[in-house]
Amino acid sequence: MSEKLYFASDYMQGAHPAVLQRLLENNLLPSAGYGTDGFSEAAREKIRLACAAPEAEVFFLVGGTQANALVLTALLKPWQGVIAADSGHISVHEAGAIECGGHKVIALPQHSGKLCPAEVEACILAWQRDANREHIVMPGAVYISHPTEFGTLYSLSELESLSRICRANGLSLFLDGARLAYALACPENELSLPDLGRLCDAFYIGGTKCGCLFGEAVVFPRRGTVLHFFTIIKQRGALLAKGFVAAHQFDALFTDGLYGRIGETAIRAAARIREALTEKGYPLAFDSPTNQIFPILDAGQLARLSASVEMGFWENLPDGRTVMRLATSWATADADVDALIALL
Amino acid sequence: MSEKLYFASDYMQGAHPAVLQRLLENNLLPSAGYGTDGFSEAAREKIRLACAAPEAEVFFLVGGTQANALVLTALLKPWQGVIAADSGHISVHEAGAIECGGHKVIALPQHSGKLCPAEVEACILAWQRDANREHIVMPGAVYISHPTEFGTLYSLSELESLSRICRANGLSLFLDGARLAYALACPENELSLPDLGRLCDAFYIGGTKCGCLFGEAVVFPRRGTVLHFFTIIKQRGALLAKGFVAAHQFDALFTDGLYGRIGETAIRAAARIREALTEKGYPLAFDSPTNQIFPILDAGQLARLSASVEMGFWENLPDGRTVMRLATSWATADADVDALIALL
Amino acid sequence: MSEKLYFASDYMQGAHPAVLQRLLENNLLPSAGYGTDGFSEAAREKIRLACAAPEAEVFFLVGGTQANALVLTALLKPWQGVIAADSGHISVHEAGAIECGGHKVIALPQHSGKLCPAEVEACILAWQRDANREHIVMPGAVYISHPTEFGTLYSLSELESLSRICRANGLSLFLDGARLAYALACPENELSLPDLGRLCDAFYIGGTKCGCLFGEAVVFPRRGTVLHFFTIIKQRGALLAKGFVAAHQFDALFTDGLYGRIGETAIRAAARIREALTEKGYPLAFDSPTNQIFPILDAGQLARLSASVEMGFWENLPDGRTVMRLATSWATADADVDALIALL
Amino acid sequence: MSEKLYFASDYMQGAHPAVLQRLLENNLLPSAGYGTDGFSEAAREKIRLACAAPEAEVFFLVGGTQANALVLTALLKPWQGVIAADSGHISVHEAGAIECGGHKVIALPQHSGKLCPAEVEACILAWQRDANREHIVMPGAVYISHPTEFGTLYSLSELESLSRICRANGLSLFLDGARLAYALACPENELSLPDLGRLCDAFYIGGTKCGCLFGEAVVFPRRGTVLHFFTIIKQRGALLAKGFVAAHQFDALFTDGLYGRIGETAIRAAARIREALTEKGYPLAFDSPTNQIFPILDAGQLARLSASVEMGFWENLPDGRTVMRLATSWATADADVDALIALL
Repeated sequence: MSEKLYFASDYMQGAHPAVLQRLLENNLLPSAGYGTDGFSEAAREKIRLACAAPEAEVFFLVGGTQANALVLTALLKPWQGVIAADSGHISVHEAGAIECGGHKVIALPQHSGKLCPAEVEACILAWQRDANREHIVMPGAVYISHPTEFGTLYSLSELESLSRICRANGLSLFLDGARLAYALACPENELSLPDLGRLCDAFYIGGTKCGCLFGEAVVFPRRGTVLHFFTIIKQRGALLAKGFVAAHQFDALFTDGLYGRIGETAIRAAARIREALTEKGYPLAFDSPTNQIFPILDAGQLARLSASVEMGFWENLPDGRTVMRLATSWATADADVDALIALL
Repeated sequence: MSEKLYFASDYMQGAHPAVLQRLLENNLLPSAGYGTDGFSEAAREKIRLACAAPEAEVFFLVGGTQANALVLTALLKPWQGVIAADSGHISVHEAGAIECGGHKVIALPQHSGKLCPAEVEACILAWQRDANREHIVMPGAVYISHPTEFGTLYSLSELESLSRICRANGLSLFLDGARLAYALACPENELSLPDLGRLCDAFYIGGTKCGCLFGEAVVFPRRGTVLHFFTIIKQRGALLAKGFVAAHQFDALFTDGLYGRIGETAIRAAARIREALTEKGYPLAFDSPTNQIFPILDAGQLARLSASVEMGFWENLPDGRTVMRLATSWATADADVDALIALL
Repeated sequence: MSEKLYFASDYMQGAHPAVLQRLLENNLLPSAGYGTDGFSEAAREKIRLACAAPEAEVFFLVGGTQANALVLTALLKPWQGVIAADSGHISVHEAGAIECGGHKVIALPQHSGKLCPAEVEACILAWQRDANREHIVMPGAVYISHPTEFGTLYSLSELESLSRICRANGLSLFLDGARLAYALACPENELSLPDLGRLCDAFYIGGTKCGCLFGEAVVFPRRGTVLHFFTIIKQRGALLAKGFVAAHQFDALFTDGLYGRIGETAIRAAARIREALTEKGYPLAFDSPTNQIFPILDAGQLARLSASVEMGFWENLPDGRTVMRLATSWATADADVDALIALL
Repeated sequence: MSEKLYFASDYMQGAHPAVLQRLLENNLLPSAGYGTDGFSEAAREKIRLACAAPEAEVFFLVGGTQANALVLTALLKPWQGVIAADSGHISVHEAGAIECGGHKVIALPQHSGKLCPAEVEACILAWQRDANREHIVMPGAVYISHPTEFGTLYSLSELESLSRICRANGLSLFLDGARLAYALACPENELSLPDLGRLCDAFYIGGTKCGCLFGEAVVFPRRGTVLHFFTIIKQRGALLAKGFVAAHQFDALFTDGLYGRIGETAIRAAARIREALTEKGYPLAFDSPTNQIFPILDAGQLARLSASVEMGFWENLPDGRTVMRLATSWATADADVDALIALL
């Protein structure tokens, strides 16, 4: 189709056909604004059902940085900060959105992109035991992403540990699910939506990278977790006048279990690419099972592949080689995967 | 079609068919993220052309409160506030978004929803002449909306006065064009897009209420008016990963002059409704020529009409009557206008 | 003594001799930092006793704007604003400190510098009854000053009304007592420290203008009103390393009832000046019984008096006359009052 | 004198006698407010002279966290953060004051409490070269403390390197001089006040820990470095009504070169203690030449010394030993040093 092969990111195309179809069908139906309409409530109810969280409060936001910033602003008290991996999206790639909202990101070392529960606990206890703790930012929440920025996955046991540590110490646990569909479609994934509903205080179900034109569904499994979140959304400029446009999309994603399947194409494609890379001797920077692949390329490989393939840059290694990122998505075509593999 | 007649607002339906068509056509074309793609640049260029502002910096945001908050944050210094009518959207209906960003809204009395240039100048001079001015918020920008929240329009001479006053005193002039298409389609309107490009330091061209699923195009006519606005957008959670989704919509609106015509249906419908109301003896709260109509209803009229018509509530009058708002849009059907008039 | 007569403000001189003496006596006694020392606790206890608020949490801050900003930040939720008179210090003369902290000042018309309880209640009810209230800043606290910026005083019945309205509607009542000593020394004053402890959720006892080098004692009569205020103070840069320096001063003020008497000199002086002005036919802009006097001067009077007297500028009247402010203090000398009166 | 020996911090006592004397002498002289008086200007002029910075803008603030937060707020743009050592005061012990003001602290590894110029440069270049830099906080300033929190000192060559790197890349260099007098009195110190005036964009001369009741003198050596700093101070609640109270103290410190000598007592005392510790075989955690000493104590030593000496806790070591901090000051008595040494 196109002259180049596009594997630079998982947000390069519009919406999944089922999502677009829903927008088309409902385009001229008059609906109340700001998410107070029936379509929005119906979509919220489908999400509550999928998460086995009948009391959940659900809000549709536009993008991931917005969801992270607003949820953490709502969860944290002014004297608190949020613990995150030093590779976490809020630590490095959100232009200081959390700090802009007044809170410190307390960065702990990443392990394959993940937080280590024992280190999280140690960080919390260190604050509690510090005689000067009232001069130090109090850890008030823990931020994790699943899949992580490295494409890796938390195990159920890890999430249970983090949840237990948070609850024992009065912190909130927040999960960034920007690419959640690619976890759910991955055989190695152990975390279901009901697990998130049970173990997290807040999480968001990614739409932008998982089949929507835009949109993230923020879920607070327990009613009353935060107060006046609607007004906080408005105040931060994040309230959609036409809330139904987000709701239609999520309704489509949560009809007939589409969200659970929508990542399968991407996972299959990524597995094929990963296998081909390994066969041809390309080392991988991270052992990640989801829709992101991180080959390490030497200068010649980089030049050759870049001529035909749009990839994402990840990191320069000290030895002169380069880590690149290949991302697949719900829209990745088999023919493009074939063509990419042929080029390796 | 529907059981009720819907005149509650101008953001009750999806996108104009030409806009939706564009989204459909381009849905699967791979594009770079964050507005760095060619579609986004093409749409920006069409807007520059329409505004006769070839050097303009154009950014696509999601909604009006977001556009107001981000542009004003970028224009104002920490010690400055923004002058606005006390009926202005930022004064009353944005949940304190400007204050949340650290700035005072310096509210002046509205006159049919508008600021009076002489009063703006007096306010600026009063600050300059106050011996204690360093203890007082400095006026740093002027915010106006066109059409205003009352549906009224600034004259060219008024805008020129405001622009002259702002430039003489080092303030920025910012125009909120959430409903700009309904001004442009209105015979009484004197302000063209090139006038805005010439007289304002920043303005936004409304999409959400004027044919888009969502979206506002922020225009800084002069390059370098604000620095690092891209990062400010990201930091405030307002950066669209799929910037092209907004761009496709604005490209459609600015193809073949659609934006200049898209409000005509609404203006014609509003004129018919206004005429019918007047004929039937309903007083109007404001003498507004655009797509919002503000009839004053007594209790009987309110009860009767509310049974069949979705209207917006505006204000309770001391005498027990109620000001309601009827809004038309690009999507208003002639049949619905006929039906409404028949009910009056 | 000095060549000019100084009546420009009540913060033109250092500390009351008893306060300075205390600083001298304790200067070299080693004390723990940050207000954790025994001197600080002793001073807090004296204030609790004077306010008949044995559970009160007391914090020593440096100045009035700081006290207002920190207490309101701590009392308000992110979606709330504070109701204040449009003449209130936080409305006009704190450079936007409240907005800088993210909150709107909801300004109501002043009546002799005071809020009208009925208007406060109407404002709160209007928000509660507004269908769009989630788009509007919620009133979360009421700010009053006593004496007001106009030198006037709330009656006990007014304070009781405000307290009742706040408690009935879940708002906090905060009283700015920058000049509280001048109320307490005033025969017309009805409000005792125990009244404040009983009726307010927070207030501060002014030191800077009432005998200290600097310092304001913030009182939260009920324990647990705000959480982690110590850390909020630290975070906003307001924590004194040598907290004992403020504590020594307040301890002196609250030893043998000095704070209740310290304003008497000022009140007597102001009464004499007010009487002389009236006798000589100078109109007064406000009928205020405390240590501020607001004569209206014509151009000749202004020029003549300014040659010999340092006064504060208040306002230009449309008719060309000028309102000036004369302030007396605990340090005002009888001879200076005599000299001023001779000049009138 | 006192029952215990007090070495817990260098802010446990009031003011140096010469400072207190100045407050006494000037206590009743009427002066204008907010630092607009002649005493304040005279003190500023003495500081300009001492720094060989005749154009410097000088402001008196109350404390160190306040000075750090306000200066950095004024120097940084909204999209920028500040580079600091991970042991820097702003990184760990200011309760998130910088983040509360909206900015990220970009923490680099400390080396004996200091930043390494080469690592600072690498951090700046990494941002400049990152293709995603507009999604990442831009380094906008560098924060150092001298002496550092570990009592160590930058060499002149290190400061020159940092200054050169900052100027080459458009960053501001800010030096926290909370304990600057203890550097100036230290034989190992290479940095003079004129060096700071020449190489820094902003710094503050510590008063609270160096002879004042409270106060820090912020110096911007070049006029116009920041705009409207007066209003920023007011807005953040940091403006002293009686600015002259801070000015009198700094005037005393900068009369006859007192500030250059005031730390000598502390440095001599610290050297004696350090020597005694070393002789008696106590290891020191840091090799610091100024007024802070960091002995490593085993459980027995800790228990024994704590019974008689107030020390500051620093850190628990993994092997069960404890790092404590002993601080001397201008007020340290020889007899107390003798007694401490006898106890070792």
